Amino acid sequence: MGLDGFFTPKTVAVIGASAELNKIGATIFRNFLKSWPGKTIPINPNKKVVLKRKSYSSVLDYPGKIDQAVIAIPAPIVPKILEQCVQKEIGSVIIISSGFKEIGRHDLEQQLLDIVSGTKTRILGPNCLGIYDAYSKVNSVFLPLDRFKLPGKGRISVLSQSGAVGSILLDILADQNIGVSRFVSYGNATDIDESDLIEYLAKDKNTDVVVGYIEGVKDGKKFMSACRNAKKPVVLLKAGRNEETSEAIQSHTGSLAGSYEIYSGALRQVKAARVEDWESLLDVAKAHLQETPKGKKILILTDGGGFGILAADGAAENGLSLPHPSQKTVDKLRKKVPGYAILKNPMDLTGDATSERYKLAIETAMKNDDYDAIVLITLWQIPTLDVKTVDEIVKLNKKYKTPFYVIAPGSEYTRKIAAKLEGAGVPVYPTPLRCMRAIAKVLESK
Amino acid sequence: MGLDGFFTPKTVAVIGASAELNKIGATIFRNFLKSWPGKTIPINPNKKVVLKRKSYSSVLDYPGKIDQAVIAIPAPIVPKILEQCVQKEIGSVIIISSGFKEIGRHDLEQQLLDIVSGTKTRILGPNCLGIYDAYSKVNSVFLPLDRFKLPGKGRISVLSQSGAVGSILLDILADQNIGVSRFVSYGNATDIDESDLIEYLAKDKNTDVVVGYIEGVKDGKKFMSACRNAKKPVVLLKAGRNEETSEAIQSHTGSLAGSYEIYSGALRQVKAARVEDWESLLDVAKAHLQETPKGKKILILTDGGGFGILAADGAAENGLSLPHPSQKTVDKLRKKVPGYAILKNPMDLTGDATSERYKLAIETAMKNDDYDAIVLITLWQIPTLDVKTVDEIVKLNKKYKTPFYVIAPGSEYTRKIAAKLEGAGVPVYPTPLRCMRAIAKVLESK
Repeated sequence: MGLDGFFTPKTVAVIGASAELNKIGATIFRNFLKSWPGKTIPINPNKKVVLKRKSYSSVLDYPGKIDQAVIAIPAPIVPKILEQCVQKEIGSVIIISSGFKEIGRHDLEQQLLDIVSGTKTRILGPNCLGIYDAYSKVNSVFLPLDRFKLPGKGRISVLSQSGAVGSILLDILADQNIGVSRFVSYGNATDIDESDLIEYLAKDKNTDVVVGYIEGVKDGKKFMSACRNAKKPVVLLKAGRNEETSEAIQSHTGSLAGSYEIYSGALRQVKAARVEDWESLLDVAKAHLQETPKGKKILILTDGGGFGILAADGAAENGLSLPHPSQKTVDKLRKKVPGYAILKNPMDLTGDATSERYKLAIETAMKNDDYDAIVLITLWQIPTLDVKTVDEIVKLNKKYKTPFYVIAPGSEYTRKIAAKLEGAGVPVYPTPLRCMRAIAKVLESK
Repeated sequence: MGLDGFFTPKTVAVIGASAELNKIGATIFRNFLKSWPGKTIPINPNKKVVLKRKSYSSVLDYPGKIDQAVIAIPAPIVPKILEQCVQKEIGSVIIISSGFKEIGRHDLEQQLLDIVSGTKTRILGPNCLGIYDAYSKVNSVFLPLDRFKLPGKGRISVLSQSGAVGSILLDILADQNIGVSRFVSYGNATDIDESDLIEYLAKDKNTDVVVGYIEGVKDGKKFMSACRNAKKPVVLLKAGRNEETSEAIQSHTGSLAGSYEIYSGALRQVKAARVEDWESLLDVAKAHLQETPKGKKILILTDGGGFGILAADGAAENGLSLPHPSQKTVDKLRKKVPGYAILKNPMDLTGDATSERYKLAIETAMKNDDYDAIVLITLWQIPTLDVKTVDEIVKLNKKYKTPFYVIAPGSEYTRKIAAKLEGAGVPVYPTPLRCMRAIAKVLESK
């Protein structure tokens, strides 16, 4: 497909490569050498050798074929270099450099478009971080890895108009131990835009959910058709939702924010999930990694009564329903759990609940009731739960088609446990409300 | 005051103390010995010595005065033990044990009330975790410290009807490096209730903000008057906001949820902040650690354009206003910051912003503009910010009366930096929206 050269090139030229520390081109070149198994060529007219690799003064001097160029040089000289890329028939060019329409230089940005017009060269950017592909290991995201984490392989793909928002999404995904397939920071969207990316990412075989942070929608019709053609969940956050904020967008990625009403209306028609909060992007995306619930009937299991009630409030306020377990389930469980356990919904297995008690409750309900989703509130501060409980939850989650969602509020120890669950594809939420909101959003986009 | 014996006793008897592992009474006794400097007496009719301390078979056998008793024994024998506490004239009794009205044993719970009625003994609980006082070190919260963190000394006091919700609030406060003054888990509220606690905690000299998780309000008038008399911010989360969930409350702490409309109405009259989400409790509480903004005029400084726009959306949607900086500020800054910095509001200091650039922007705006609050978006993933930036922010925050709020999304590295800021009293939010919501809530309760 048209954008493959961005994600699975064989040969990449880094234009602006050097050995200096703290230079963007240098960092990108080093990252490619370190993690990407393909052929990376440094391009720098002032060097003969960069980090022991033969350097070329221009892509035109390199004798072989080049699939991708990453450009990290000052904006005014980008057009000349882009011309060379076109001449060399490089299909995929990532322009990291900023200094184009986001600072009012529409002329310079138009030049880029004119240069590639009618050619086989496509541009990602300018003013972007480019690509991270967890499978192919292509990586032009140049943030320091001692402050920022990169996720491993997974089933979520991310597009972000803002490099900062996008890269911090990666940081947080990695922190939660959730993998990604492909990440694209696309900046000013001069050539390749949000619609191209939604369509392309939705076709990726490793992608189950597409997540996007968008500032401007360039072409409403194209956008709607991209969302409609995506046969996978698409979860989008649109910035510049208010009149006051659309001006700020112009000075960020040079985009026109467009009317939020029109955008929302379009999304409703195509059933892509629209979230209003950056935190909800991931909350909803990871809920999509489970099967979509058939309906609104949720069973809440808890080992802490207060959190059960907060979850029930969250369920009620998000249109989910909490039918009580059947008499059969209650009778079966009554014989096997302590008398103080509350066999309603929320089902309070109480503060000494063990893995076995959770398992018993889940299996009994799965057999005798008709719930569409199971919400497990697990307070890992309580000594009766442990790492084995994680295995049990993962095993049961695989056994049943009914989706599971876990609520686990807490600090370091809880984060460790949550990371294990997330690594096995079970979404974990730090608060009851965020979990219930995510389930409701998933149901909305059904 | 009446409840001092719960927080600053001189002698504490732990009834149910033993040397066994995994027993609640044993854990509480060990915690007292380890951290509390006062005199702790084990009470256990079956032991002569517990952990090298002389044990007594009843409080009546101990020759000296006892200020506080902590009871962790099976519910049916609690009344008899409580009678002994009354006879011994112990003023403060914490009943940890559950098995009272929350499981339908209203009779047993009524007995407790009858026993203390007309005496000088007050009961906290039953069915609670009791007290943690960060200053006096009284601590009956018995969760294992390898899974759960206890905060140090600070300016927030917490009351929670649910032990789980309360203790996990502590866990998260500690994780964020925010200290507390006093923590009370009060369970079934047989004697001491939410109103007593709000009133008492608001008078504590180490407390600047009172935070509460409440299931049932026992006495509406008393509650309103307690909130009104509190001359400090009170931030409350009420569970059981929906008809469907009030039933669950009865089987948790035996409380009647009461109508949420009446509760909300009452809170509006007394200007206590009502939040709908457990996460917002701390978000709003820590915002109160700064001066209350005089008005709604916020300046947003950012080193990432996308987050600036998200923050601006959040501000607009929460009724905050973002006036542009004055021409004077713009002219002054224009000479000293790079041409690509955007001197509007949000003010985008861009991805290479340094501590100095933030400082310059803050000081210039403080001198020439009339902002009521400063929101600093700081992406610590970017190498130009470092630990010194924390010192700079803290210093400037102390210099000006205008409150500061920081937005810092990210993973481990960011959490470390955020903890430093929180430790110095500067609230940090993981998302723009949560920050703006918290500021709006603080303004609401003005």
